[in-house]
Amino acid sequence: MAAEKWVYMVTAQTPTNIAVIKYWGKRDEVRILPVNDSISVTLDPDHLCTVTTVAVSPSFDRDRMWLNGKEISLSGSRYQNCLREIRGRAGDVEDKEKGVKIDKKDWEKLHLHIASHNNFPTAAGLASSAAGFACLVFSLAKLMNVDEDASHLSAIARQGSGSACRSLFGGFVKWEMGSKDDGSDSIAVQLADEKHWNDLVIIIAVVSSRQKETSSTSGMRESVETSLLLQHRAKEVVPKRTLQMEEAIKNKDFASFTQLSCADSNQFHAVCLDTSPPIFYMNDTSHRIISLVEKWNRSEGTPQVAYTFDAGPNAVLIARNRKVAVQLLQGLLYYFPPKSDTDMKSYVVGDNSILKEAGLDGANSVENLQPPPEIKDNIGSQDQKGEVSYFICTKPGRGPVVLPDQTQALLDPETGLPK
Amino acid sequence: MAAEKWVYMVTAQTPTNIAVIKYWGKRDEVRILPVNDSISVTLDPDHLCTVTTVAVSPSFDRDRMWLNGKEISLSGSRYQNCLREIRGRAGDVEDKEKGVKIDKKDWEKLHLHIASHNNFPTAAGLASSAAGFACLVFSLAKLMNVDEDASHLSAIARQGSGSACRSLFGGFVKWEMGSKDDGSDSIAVQLADEKHWNDLVIIIAVVSSRQKETSSTSGMRESVETSLLLQHRAKEVVPKRTLQMEEAIKNKDFASFTQLSCADSNQFHAVCLDTSPPIFYMNDTSHRIISLVEKWNRSEGTPQVAYTFDAGPNAVLIARNRKVAVQLLQGLLYYFPPKSDTDMKSYVVGDNSILKEAGLDGANSVENLQPPPEIKDNIGSQDQKGEVSYFICTKPGRGPVVLPDQTQALLDPETGLPK
Repeated sequence: MAAEKWVYMVTAQTPTNIAVIKYWGKRDEVRILPVNDSISVTLDPDHLCTVTTVAVSPSFDRDRMWLNGKEISLSGSRYQNCLREIRGRAGDVEDKEKGVKIDKKDWEKLHLHIASHNNFPTAAGLASSAAGFACLVFSLAKLMNVDEDASHLSAIARQGSGSACRSLFGGFVKWEMGSKDDGSDSIAVQLADEKHWNDLVIIIAVVSSRQKETSSTSGMRESVETSLLLQHRAKEVVPKRTLQMEEAIKNKDFASFTQLSCADSNQFHAVCLDTSPPIFYMNDTSHRIISLVEKWNRSEGTPQVAYTFDAGPNAVLIARNRKVAVQLLQGLLYYFPPKSDTDMKSYVVGDNSILKEAGLDGANSVENLQPPPEIKDNIGSQDQKGEVSYFICTKPGRGPVVLPDQTQALLDPETGLPK
Repeated sequence: MAAEKWVYMVTAQTPTNIAVIKYWGKRDEVRILPVNDSISVTLDPDHLCTVTTVAVSPSFDRDRMWLNGKEISLSGSRYQNCLREIRGRAGDVEDKEKGVKIDKKDWEKLHLHIASHNNFPTAAGLASSAAGFACLVFSLAKLMNVDEDASHLSAIARQGSGSACRSLFGGFVKWEMGSKDDGSDSIAVQLADEKHWNDLVIIIAVVSSRQKETSSTSGMRESVETSLLLQHRAKEVVPKRTLQMEEAIKNKDFASFTQLSCADSNQFHAVCLDTSPPIFYMNDTSHRIISLVEKWNRSEGTPQVAYTFDAGPNAVLIARNRKVAVQLLQGLLYYFPPKSDTDMKSYVVGDNSILKEAGLDGANSVENLQPPPEIKDNIGSQDQKGEVSYFICTKPGRGPVVLPDQTQALLDPETGLPK
């Protein structure tokens, strides 16, 4: 390797994911090893994703990272673990056109620039760290020509953020807790790709919150230390539920999928409540959305919509098909209309072609919505404007990809600094 | 027994109680037998009680009952079970002055008039059925000269409403779940009387709610049928916790009392959340009150206030002594001030002499309250007026008593009809 002034870089896009069988509790805090298996749905990266550009150059004097345009420290152990693991697996790289030649052993001396960007608000509590660490590991693996499959990469991403391991695949993904002390068998595997069950439509209600939330890292530590229900859940409940969920996904059995998703989300929040001091992630708006969905499902006789809530008040609603999703959106907008000065296209984002299907693309169309017929008593007798910040319409999506188009890179190809 | 026109009656007062180790789940729906032991504190009947007058007369042609002035049906099995059990144990009664002589065997033919009144709003979710059934059974036992101790009467009251059995005693009471199929050993026993730990001060926040609540009867049935955590709680968690709570009460160990009360309240609500569909009794206001108490307890190093929530959003806060209660009330009123047109004496009821001690008996005194120093981040940055309907200040109290003063009777001594 000569001391040329080249900058060699790779840009990748990685999806976020939402667990339908929840991860809550580590058996090893350092290696990030969970107390139970978990299962997730990967969300369409067109609507929710992280894009990361990683660059290497002999001219870089230290590792640096920019997250959403702002430089952040890489000194934390989570970043350091991912960087060390990836560097340890780096291969030879040659790009004759650019005059780049990196020998496997050079990676220990070369420095990296990393720029990462989420196409959704980080603060919205939408698992930005999952997509972020998955994208970091995936893009570095491509840059460094790491010869490992996605499951092996998932075990590295896991050391950045547990749920990140599930973002290495599209579709439906299982994180196997593993049994080895070194965590080498605590990896993600794909259960089915995103085409397997492509009727599903996902609507996320980003719920306004005035409560400062407990981080999931400290929350799950406190649950492990104090909840008398967590170990019972991990050992007795989740193993059976995981098998049932795998079957439900395999058979596209929406009734079972819904029953298991809702029960597991509620049980995860039950364990949070059983923690001392108790952790409340859902708020009254979350509860109202659950009531709305439960009533609708009961009135239809067969489940139409599944719900699941992560470590925050946002509702992730999975509709069995597009028609149901349209009705669901109408119901949601009836109960949670936008504030009067809000443009519908900024109140329903992601795949907002659904607005037209729901007849909600015109002016005053929300005011004309009728209450869903199944709701006899008032879930929302009072004005609930402002309880939901916005909705995202999306669907199950693909896993990580390299973005070959240089214009999508977040670093300047000459300087290696953020554009 | 001649067909004279006498009316013979007894008036009694019975307290309500709040569980600190919760009853949630029946193993026998008919006999009302619980899945675990529970422990409660009896609340001072001066502030929260039921008064019941029971009358018998040869002139009555059927059993009748009036609750809070309104005639209600006695045909429900809960009333019928209590009436049958008490009648089966009736003794001879003679009141020479009134010319009353009732032979044991006559009770099967004589009819009863019953009038009952709560000195607190029934709708407030303050265990009115517990005090009500306890008072019904206690007053009938006195009327009919039933020769049974309070524990045996508790087993009858239990068949009206499970938690009613704990209202047969003052102070600290344990409901032993028992093991017999017929429920004869599922009785309440007194752990300590109300004088044992008389430093404690209890402040109840009656929280406004816009949600229709699930009744505890149907809620616990759904939990037994669907929660995968309930049996684990009943079999593995509560037995140990009950022993620890008995010790804490015996030793007046406020730190343990608080830890156990709060953990058990939270776990009961966790089981409700683990029910399908999930049951939410606490709301955002309940959560805010918990955060406030938890922060204060942590900042003091040693617990000052315990909290517990029954099947509703109301907070029952137990302060270690009067001084702490005064500070607690100041903090609560800072975060949850009354609406501007509310008189303080109607916003803090029960023992409202505490208002003067808190310097809150004058005009504008609430506006002058300072935020509690330990609260650094905002629990209540927004206007929370109206979130709490009112507060009740009370303390542990005595068990049932007969009220000999005829002016307190709810039935007319001549007609046997409501006054």
